[in-house]
Amino acid sequence: MKTIATISILSLAWLSQSALAQTTTTPSTIAQTNPHQLHIQSWHLKNGAKVLLVERHALPIVDINVAFDAGSRRDDAQKIGVANFAGSLMDMGAGKWNEEDIRRLSSDWAVTVSSFSDTEQAGIRIRSLSQPQTLQDALKLGQTILSRPTYPQTVLTREQDRAVLGWKQNQTDPQFLSSQAMTRLNYPQHPYGYWAQENEASIRAIKRQDLIDFHHRYFRPSTAVVSIVGDINRSQAQKIATELLADLPQQKLKLPNIAAVPLHKGQTTHIHHPASQTHLDLSLPVISRDDVDYFALLIGNYTLGAGGFDSLLMKELRDNRGFTYGAYSHFNPMAQKGTFSIGLSTQAANAPEALKVTKQVLADYIAQGPTEAQLQQAKNNIIGGFPMRFDTNNKLLGWLSTIGFYQLPLDYLDTYPQKVQALTTEQIRDAWQRRLKVEDLNVVTVGQSLKQ
Amino acid sequence: MKTIATISILSLAWLSQSALAQTTTTPSTIAQTNPHQLHIQSWHLKNGAKVLLVERHALPIVDINVAFDAGSRRDDAQKIGVANFAGSLMDMGAGKWNEEDIRRLSSDWAVTVSSFSDTEQAGIRIRSLSQPQTLQDALKLGQTILSRPTYPQTVLTREQDRAVLGWKQNQTDPQFLSSQAMTRLNYPQHPYGYWAQENEASIRAIKRQDLIDFHHRYFRPSTAVVSIVGDINRSQAQKIATELLADLPQQKLKLPNIAAVPLHKGQTTHIHHPASQTHLDLSLPVISRDDVDYFALLIGNYTLGAGGFDSLLMKELRDNRGFTYGAYSHFNPMAQKGTFSIGLSTQAANAPEALKVTKQVLADYIAQGPTEAQLQQAKNNIIGGFPMRFDTNNKLLGWLSTIGFYQLPLDYLDTYPQKVQALTTEQIRDAWQRRLKVEDLNVVTVGQSLKQ
Repeated sequence: MKTIATISILSLAWLSQSALAQTTTTPSTIAQTNPHQLHIQSWHLKNGAKVLLVERHALPIVDINVAFDAGSRRDDAQKIGVANFAGSLMDMGAGKWNEEDIRRLSSDWAVTVSSFSDTEQAGIRIRSLSQPQTLQDALKLGQTILSRPTYPQTVLTREQDRAVLGWKQNQTDPQFLSSQAMTRLNYPQHPYGYWAQENEASIRAIKRQDLIDFHHRYFRPSTAVVSIVGDINRSQAQKIATELLADLPQQKLKLPNIAAVPLHKGQTTHIHHPASQTHLDLSLPVISRDDVDYFALLIGNYTLGAGGFDSLLMKELRDNRGFTYGAYSHFNPMAQKGTFSIGLSTQAANAPEALKVTKQVLADYIAQGPTEAQLQQAKNNIIGGFPMRFDTNNKLLGWLSTIGFYQLPLDYLDTYPQKVQALTTEQIRDAWQRRLKVEDLNVVTVGQSLKQ
Repeated sequence: MKTIATISILSLAWLSQSALAQTTTTPSTIAQTNPHQLHIQSWHLKNGAKVLLVERHALPIVDINVAFDAGSRRDDAQKIGVANFAGSLMDMGAGKWNEEDIRRLSSDWAVTVSSFSDTEQAGIRIRSLSQPQTLQDALKLGQTILSRPTYPQTVLTREQDRAVLGWKQNQTDPQFLSSQAMTRLNYPQHPYGYWAQENEASIRAIKRQDLIDFHHRYFRPSTAVVSIVGDINRSQAQKIATELLADLPQQKLKLPNIAAVPLHKGQTTHIHHPASQTHLDLSLPVISRDDVDYFALLIGNYTLGAGGFDSLLMKELRDNRGFTYGAYSHFNPMAQKGTFSIGLSTQAANAPEALKVTKQVLADYIAQGPTEAQLQQAKNNIIGGFPMRFDTNNKLLGWLSTIGFYQLPLDYLDTYPQKVQALTTEQIRDAWQRRLKVEDLNVVTVGQSLKQ
C-alpha cells in the first residue's frame, strides 16, 4: 500500500503544478513534496482591497466572501448596535429590489447572497454556479446589496422588534446571562464588550440614518478582504473582486487601530437564577491572532480542556467527582486579546466545590504542563484532524477570510501541522506559566444563591 | 468573461483525463464537453460486493460508506427493532475493544468510524486521512466493527432504556404522533411500517442473541455496497473494499425481494392532543426509486409544495388564507413505493377549512399541472442548485451509496439536469393525473378535537 500511495502522490504533485501553470500568471511556489499544499493566491486591487483565491475545479461552483473592517468593534460607544444592523440588514432591500425581490431572484437564479456582521467583520457571502451567466447575475445582486442597501424603515422596525424580543428571552437564559456578565467583567469599556451593554433602549434608539451613515463610512474597498474558492481562475477572480467593490466609495479609509485590551482581573459576579444547575464560567482576555504564544497556548489547551473525554478537566470534574456531564476550556483569539475561558454546569449545592476543583486542575496544569504522552496525544489528534477543518469549499473560504483579515501568512494552513509537531512540553509549560494565573481569572456563577 | 471561462474549461478537461489515465486501469469515458462530469468508477469484488469510487485528490482525506441490505425492512415481523439495534450498536464494542477503547483509538488516530441503520440499509461510515498508516488503522477499526461486534449486554440494556425513554417522549410530540399514525395507515403490514409498531414491550423483548443472529445472517459481502470518495485510486480502493469485508461470512446470500406495497387508501385518523396548533398530514405510498414517472413527479412537486414561498400550497394556505407559517409537499422514493405527503400546522379552529383548501390546491394542480412559467422556474432552481447537492465529499459519498444500493445508472448525477430540462408541462400533468388522486390520500390530524 505504501508503494502505491507514493506513486499516486508523485503523479498528482506533477499534475497540480501543471494546472497552476496554466491558470495563473504567478509563479507556482508549490513544494515538490506536498501535493495537498493549498496554494493560496493573493494580491491587492488598486483601491486597496485584498483578494485571496484558491482554485477548486472539481465542481462548477464559486464561493465568495467579502469582509470589511465594519464589525461591532467599530460602533460608536454612544450608539451600540448600529454596526450589526448596518451589516446584517444589507440583504433585506438594495437598489430597486425589496426583500421579496431579492428572495425571488435568488431562488430563480439558484444563487445565495447573504449579508453578515460580527464583532470584527461585516460583509456578504455569495454562492453561485461558475457558469458565466449565473455568476454574472450573482455578482450583480452581490454588488447591489453591498453598495446600495436601502434599509427600509419597515424592515428596521421589524428587526428591532425581533432584537428586543430576543434580548428579553436571553435575559432568562443562564448560559447567555453568564456570557453577558463575563463580557462586562472582561471588556467593561472595550469595543469587544459593546454587545453585552445592549438593552431594549439601545436597540430602539437606532435610527435608519445611523445605518446609512455607518455603511457609507465603513464599507470601503480599502478595508475589504475578498476571498474566493472554487471553479475560477485568477483573471476571473480579479474581475469578480473589482466588480463587487466598484460601486462603493473608493476613497481610502484610514481607520484608528482597535485599542489594546486593558485587563481587569480577579473579579467575581454571581447572578441569581432559579435553575437547578449552576453555570460556572472562568475567563480572561489572553490571546490575540498574532500572539507569539499562539500555538503553545492552543495546543496546550487540548490536554487541559479541549480533548473531550480525555481532558484533565473532564477526568477530574466528571469522572472522579461526578460534578458535571462536561467541562471545557477554550481560547478565542481575536485581533486584540480574546478570551481564555473554562465553563461547566453543576448542581447548585456542588458549585463552590466544583469551582475549587476547577481552579486546582488549572493550577496544577500551569505548574506541570502536559506530559510527553499527553502532548503526543494532542499532536496526533490535532494534526490528524487538521485537513478536516477545511474539507469543504465553505470551510476553506472561512479560513481564507481569516488569513486575509488577520494578515496571517499565506502558508498558515500548510505550515500549521509542522508548528504543532515542533512544540515541546517545556514550551507549553513556559507559555502557560507566563500567560495565565489562576487568581487573575474572572469568575461568574449563574444559579441558585446558596445560604452562607 | 465567457472566453476566459472556455479556455479554463478546456485546459481542465485535458488535465482530468490525464489524471485518470495515470491512476486507474479502466478506460476513461469522460466526455470532451463537461469538465465537471463525475466519472464514477464501479466494479464488483469476487464475493459479490459492489464498489463505487470517485477520486478527489485536493485533500488528503478518504470517506468510505459500507452499506448492507440489513435495514429494518429485514426485521422479522415478530421481532421488530432487532435490525436497528444490530446495525447501530456495532460501534459500541467489537473484537477485543470496548466502547471506551473505540472512542480512544478514534481520537488518537483522528479517524471516525461509526455504524448506522435505517429502513433499507445498515453499515458503517469511515473518515480518515489518506496517509497510509492512518488509513490502515482506520480500516482495521472498520473491519473489526463490521465483522466482530460484541453487543455487550450492558450496552444493549442501556440503549434499550434510552430507546424506551425516547419512545415515551415521542408519544407526546404531535409531529411524531402524526408520522407514526400515518405510517400505520400507509404500511399496516409492510416492513416499511415496522418502526411505527414499536412500543416499550417490543423494545424490551430484544435479546443479545437476536442481534448476533441478525448480524450473522444479513451482513454479507454479497449484499454490500462499498462507496469511496477521496484521495485514493482504483487499486487502493480495491484493497480497501476487500479488507473491510474480509472477515465477514463469504457465502452469498439470496435475500427474498421486499414485497410490493399494498395500497390502503382514503383512510382518516384523528389523534387528540392538547396543543393549540393542529398538525395535518396527507399521504400515500406512491413513488419508487426506479419509478418511470420519477422525474415528472419530483420536478412537478417543486411548483406544488417544494418551492418554498413560491409554491402553490404556500401561496394559498399562507399568503392568501393566513392559516399557517408553512405548508410543504414531499416525495420519499424507496426501493418499493415510498410516500408522497403534504404537511402543515394550523390553529385547531382552522383545521377543517385548511384541510379542505389543501385538497383543493392539490386537486387543481393535478387537473391543470404547472404553467410553462412555473415549470421554467422549477427547472432554473433545480438545475441551478443541483451541483450544491454534492458539493462536499460527504454528500457525494451519500449519492454514491444511493446509486449503488438502488442500482441507478452510474451517470445518474451527470444526466440529472438534462432529464429535468427535457420535461414538459404535459408530461408532468399526465404523470400526476395517472398517479395521484386526492380522495386516495390518507389523512391524519393531531390536535384538539373540535365539537361537531
